[in-house]
Amino acid sequence: MDLTDENITANTVIINSQGPDKRLQYLMERLVTHLHDFARETQLTTEEWMKALVFLKGAGQISSDTRQLILLSDVLGLSTLVEAINNPKPANATEGSVLGPFHTDDAHFTENGESIASPNKGELCLVRCTLRDTSGKPIPDAKIDVWETDDTGRYDTQYEGRTGPDCRGVLKSNKDGEFWFKCVKPVSYPIPHDGPVGKLLVLLRRHPFRPAHLHFKIEREGFDPLITALYLRGDPYEISDAVFGVKSSLIVTPQKVRDPKIAGKYGVGVNDWYMPWDFVLVGEAEGRQLKKERALAALEKMGCTAKIVDGLPVAHDVD
Amino acid sequence: MDLTDENITANTVIINSQGPDKRLQYLMERLVTHLHDFARETQLTTEEWMKALVFLKGAGQISSDTRQLILLSDVLGLSTLVEAINNPKPANATEGSVLGPFHTDDAHFTENGESIASPNKGELCLVRCTLRDTSGKPIPDAKIDVWETDDTGRYDTQYEGRTGPDCRGVLKSNKDGEFWFKCVKPVSYPIPHDGPVGKLLVLLRRHPFRPAHLHFKIEREGFDPLITALYLRGDPYEISDAVFGVKSSLIVTPQKVRDPKIAGKYGVGVNDWYMPWDFVLVGEAEGRQLKKERALAALEKMGCTAKIVDGLPVAHDVD
Repeated sequence: MDLTDENITANTVIINSQGPDKRLQYLMERLVTHLHDFARETQLTTEEWMKALVFLKGAGQISSDTRQLILLSDVLGLSTLVEAINNPKPANATEGSVLGPFHTDDAHFTENGESIASPNKGELCLVRCTLRDTSGKPIPDAKIDVWETDDTGRYDTQYEGRTGPDCRGVLKSNKDGEFWFKCVKPVSYPIPHDGPVGKLLVLLRRHPFRPAHLHFKIEREGFDPLITALYLRGDPYEISDAVFGVKSSLIVTPQKVRDPKIAGKYGVGVNDWYMPWDFVLVGEAEGRQLKKERALAALEKMGCTAKIVDGLPVAHDVD
Repeated sequence: MDLTDENITANTVIINSQGPDKRLQYLMERLVTHLHDFARETQLTTEEWMKALVFLKGAGQISSDTRQLILLSDVLGLSTLVEAINNPKPANATEGSVLGPFHTDDAHFTENGESIASPNKGELCLVRCTLRDTSGKPIPDAKIDVWETDDTGRYDTQYEGRTGPDCRGVLKSNKDGEFWFKCVKPVSYPIPHDGPVGKLLVLLRRHPFRPAHLHFKIEREGFDPLITALYLRGDPYEISDAVFGVKSSLIVTPQKVRDPKIAGKYGVGVNDWYMPWDFVLVGEAEGRQLKKERALAALEKMGCTAKIVDGLPVAHDVD
């Protein structure tokens, strides 16, 4: 009962250990321990703590159906970390990148060759991709979700009175594992920075920009889903992405079409932009095995003494 | 640029270290380090991380002017810890307790002997207190803010259409350091548990109750402000306060008035409740010194290598 700054942590952990969910218990034990150690290590002042609560409340309140608290996780590097933990890739597969807060589930099916953007938006860009497994075999019939901002750097969901999807599409790979579409040449843009997260970035003297990129979410039975993005080489924010999403293996060099035969075949102009890319998916079993191995290695490295169930640490049973 | 689950933390810390505020830099460095270690140690799954973001968003959105996110901090033991860090008390002074989310600034001045509650609310209780410094000298003219729930366990701010304060008062100690007032005998009550925090408590098999108590906030120039509460002995939640506020030194035994002379003097009945209490305030200089000493001892114990400015760790200057 006599709680001090020294025994409060152990007491909180005990009170949180009455339930049947041993995974939740472990998560709470680690969360409370880290949160309390943070307060002790910083000797957090009452004023700072109050400011943090006001910040979190504000970040929650500015969130909506189209504006997610995930932004806070993004700028703290947490989203990139969680993505890396949960989706390890072998060296010969395409790496993942952050999902971000702008994916929607209402994009229309787009035939190969069609545009995902409504007419007269920015510079036209042809994207031609192949999809293969780690042995090089084409993957047909995959569902490929693609989304991007328009040429002003805004996703459709950032406009008032949005009536339907734009700059989004869902494609299907053909029998040779190919898919191709037209889009707006991606531009760099600021993440929403008019709320608490934006104010934090100002205090930290950080800019809110993401380098130009195009999002992909690729799903096919038997394979690990791939959430990734292609980043355009030469972008001024290439090495200072506000949300830590860029990876060098995901940087694509925008080219010009040039060849009139290609232009004719795909219905684009010789001066339009062109980006080719080869994606490699990891098989489900291989992905699961790799994730388990990496998890165990990471836990061992951190000296974790928890019980491991299905590759995840859980609280020990109380004797 | 090639961020992995291993190097993302160092990179995030570097990007957060560009600003002039060295205290903020230190706070962010520790926050990001703990947050990332939490994700690594738990091998946090994408689903769990998403659930946590939805939880935080919900907790922020249900907050309002009269309902604060402080509740989440309270049930995690963080509020008690921050209170203990910031308001250390020498052994002969009254201990502090959590402020809670229900203090307001609009309570009316209450003369000694008056009631802080409107008529016909629950069981009447006379509270008689003295206020002294650590040498035993009475402290006159202190401002004493008192607040409590009504007999149904609700603060005035928890009623729709609140028009003004009730079960709250601001008193002043007399020349002998005494103050006394009537109130509703405190009852135990559940913290707001219809939101995300309540759902978390259910998952953890925790009850949402606080034992019966009466809040005090005592301010006097030259002394450390004292935020505390008196807890009623024998309450069923005495040793399982949902927000970790109870301390054994703050438990008061409710008595009956009995003596007709006392009853007559204070305008109460012989069967009314009566709670006496002696508060001891810490001098400002003594409190500041104690806080500094405790902070340095705590930081040393944790092996903190940060630069210390005004008793608080800050980030080192970059060479």
